[in-house]
Amino acid sequence: MSTLHSWFSIPRGSHFSLANIPFGIISTASSKIPRVAVAIGDHALDLQVFAANNGFSGLSTIQPHQAVFSQPTLNAFAALGRPVHSVVRKYIQSVFAEDTPYPEVLRTNSSLQKQAIYPLREVQTHLPFKIGDYTDFYAGLNHAYNVGVLFRGPANALQANYKHLPVGYHGRASSVVVSGTPIRRPNGQILENPAAEKKFPSFSPCRKLDIELELGAFVCKANEIGQPVSISEAEESLFGVVLMNDWSARDIQAWEYVPLGPFNAKNFGTTISAWVVLAEALEPFLAKGLENDTELLPYLREKRTENVYDIRLQVDLKTKSGRSTTLSKTSSRNLLWSFPQMLAHHSITGCPMQVGDLLGSGTISGLEPSERGSLLEQNENGKASIKLADGEERKFLEDGDEITITGVCGSDERALVGFGECVGRIEPALKL
Amino acid sequence: MSTLHSWFSIPRGSHFSLANIPFGIISTASSKIPRVAVAIGDHALDLQVFAANNGFSGLSTIQPHQAVFSQPTLNAFAALGRPVHSVVRKYIQSVFAEDTPYPEVLRTNSSLQKQAIYPLREVQTHLPFKIGDYTDFYAGLNHAYNVGVLFRGPANALQANYKHLPVGYHGRASSVVVSGTPIRRPNGQILENPAAEKKFPSFSPCRKLDIELELGAFVCKANEIGQPVSISEAEESLFGVVLMNDWSARDIQAWEYVPLGPFNAKNFGTTISAWVVLAEALEPFLAKGLENDTELLPYLREKRTENVYDIRLQVDLKTKSGRSTTLSKTSSRNLLWSFPQMLAHHSITGCPMQVGDLLGSGTISGLEPSERGSLLEQNENGKASIKLADGEERKFLEDGDEITITGVCGSDERALVGFGECVGRIEPALKL
Ligand SMILES: [Ca+2]
Ligand SMILES: [Ca+2]
Ligand SMILES: [Mg+2]
Ligand SMILES: [Mg+2]
Ligand code: NI
Repeated sequence: MSTLHSWFSIPRGSHFSLANIPFGIISTASSKIPRVAVAIGDHALDLQVFAANNGFSGLSTIQPHQAVFSQPTLNAFAALGRPVHSVVRKYIQSVFAEDTPYPEVLRTNSSLQKQAIYPLREVQTHLPFKIGDYTDFYAGLNHAYNVGVLFRGPANALQANYKHLPVGYHGRASSVVVSGTPIRRPNGQILENPAAEKKFPSFSPCRKLDIELELGAFVCKANEIGQPVSISEAEESLFGVVLMNDWSARDIQAWEYVPLGPFNAKNFGTTISAWVVLAEALEPFLAKGLENDTELLPYLREKRTENVYDIRLQVDLKTKSGRSTTLSKTSSRNLLWSFPQMLAHHSITGCPMQVGDLLGSGTISGLEPSERGSLLEQNENGKASIKLADGEERKFLEDGDEITITGVCGSDERALVGFGECVGRIEPALKL
Repeated sequence: MSTLHSWFSIPRGSHFSLANIPFGIISTASSKIPRVAVAIGDHALDLQVFAANNGFSGLSTIQPHQAVFSQPTLNAFAALGRPVHSVVRKYIQSVFAEDTPYPEVLRTNSSLQKQAIYPLREVQTHLPFKIGDYTDFYAGLNHAYNVGVLFRGPANALQANYKHLPVGYHGRASSVVVSGTPIRRPNGQILENPAAEKKFPSFSPCRKLDIELELGAFVCKANEIGQPVSISEAEESLFGVVLMNDWSARDIQAWEYVPLGPFNAKNFGTTISAWVVLAEALEPFLAKGLENDTELLPYLREKRTENVYDIRLQVDLKTKSGRSTTLSKTSSRNLLWSFPQMLAHHSITGCPMQVGDLLGSGTISGLEPSERGSLLEQNENGKASIKLADGEERKFLEDGDEITITGVCGSDERALVGFGECVGRIEPALKL
């Protein structure tokens, strides 16, 4: 795609180029009520203020719906549907374009620029959606395989169902938090010696606190209960994508998870990035995912073969010393299932999806050790230590550790489509 | 407890005696907007109309909050807290009492009686809460044991964690529906021959459609993320209880559930009864649950030993022929864990609970075959057939079958505390 040039100063290398236009929820020191904004370069454009000052004068289709930009979440905007997201994004691109056909809207309107555009460092971001239900899938085949090897050996690493359906489980929606929110180390039941005949758990702060590098996708279209979303309709039901860190308490999980799956090991916090990149902005970066050598049932067959995003993902760990170490670099091509496949599978029973539902991809790992998206894989279930830049070592996260996930698409430094950061720092467990 | 006599006609044997006063959401032919009501005998008292006509003149504490009765869910009323639920219930009891101190409010006010009291058969009930998150536990020890025997044999029937913590998993909130909503048989992936070396699933309507007899409890108090609800605070966080049928697709579940738990097998529908019985109304029926011979960690130790409800539960199946058969009769004493224990465990990691969250008890079965709360147990995983009154036989549910769960406490026919019915009828699967 060609670079879009802007009259507005967008730094080279910005994740929020004119090719992106991601949506989020912000508040500011002078106006504490959360509302809708887009990110552009190092700035946020406040769409509530923009709309109130005739910013959408060149886009009549949105005018009856402008109240959506005053909402404290993106749910109402998302519910307008993909065609509306598309025209709003394209209109904002055209307002910022060097040769904008609407110069009076913003380019020559310095008063509105002052009112509606804020440096990103001065805005507070908020959870972008009111999330009704959150479902976490397990579509990262390399992760599923690596973990399977650790617990069941290579012969049985993948379960028999793995390549036939996108394995997933219902997660906890209430503990999804926006980037920057501190994560308190959970307390819970831990079985210190799994080999003991008498299995008595102890109560302790989690000692195997881990990350999971994931993508999240938000739903923008509801289906009636009893009416599945077909694979061909699924794409239209997906609003956009965020980075996600599915914090995981491995020791709590190991004891609790039979027979009904992870519960407390996952419900204390899941961090997502603040700016939701529209599905349309990511379309140029669709690529083939991992090969599935299994014949799929028709309800999971997608017409297109390029169905996952090629996002360059990176995970960094900063210790209390302030020094950072890159733990992992990989691509989100490392998925066996696409979000449309997850949605089609989720709803095949008639399960009603709602606007604002969040789908997690599952942990994304490449084939190489340097591409692993969880510490569990990197330390081989606690056997190996990870050396950090400041000389420290880690198996799992310590108090004060800060994890930053970044993700970006494209190679033209003036036209990147990125996600900014997904950050969380570990606070000490409560003493109970 | 002593019988409360009313000037209002409440049939003997009614679940909704003056000792009860359950809350729900109704609409009527003449006023389609859902709002709050209580059930009393064969009638509903519309609290929106009651409040608007000075019905709460004798209860000054509720007057600043009367807008909660015009809401389409109980969330706002529930959020007022247990002391407020208590005074509202007691005030309504006093308004209906034979010797009411407020005769002018309703007893001698035939105009308000006509406006605000409707026969139950003329009201439409709605889902009582906007449910943020729904968690299903597995606290029915006899059920867990019976199912464990079927799949793992008696020696390993219960997992090692079972008596140390209330096992649970996150469920699907969006598909919780109110009693009377039809349930469409789900389609999904089924492994016809689990013994085959090559495991290829087929796509089919569920053939092992089952019920799960459960109770549900609603949360009325939020906790901050990172701040557990202690076992001593948990009671104050519970609003009230409903009957619940956790419809389950056993064949879909068997194929999908490793390693992350049930997903599509449970997400197509969960039915709850329409009238929420307040925790306070159930307090006289607290009883000892099943004995736990394991020493509990302190965060799960409750002061009181009578911590579960003694509700007489019954499951009936009506076929297309119109004839009903009682499938099961048991008591909700058959639980190893109480709702306060579930809540304390759920939040011990700091998981934030929200007003309107729903906790399911897990399937409730007694020791006897006639007390089993699922067909899976009754048919011993498809081996035995269940004989019905009309001569038909069942292993699992057929299209057109209607399941009715009832539950009631107490022995005085003039002072029962019951739940009414939790009903769902199976519609044929969609042809895809
Ligand atoms: Ca995950
Ligand atoms: Ca259940
Ligand atoms: Mg999580
Ligand atoms: Mg269910
Ligand atoms: Ni260019």
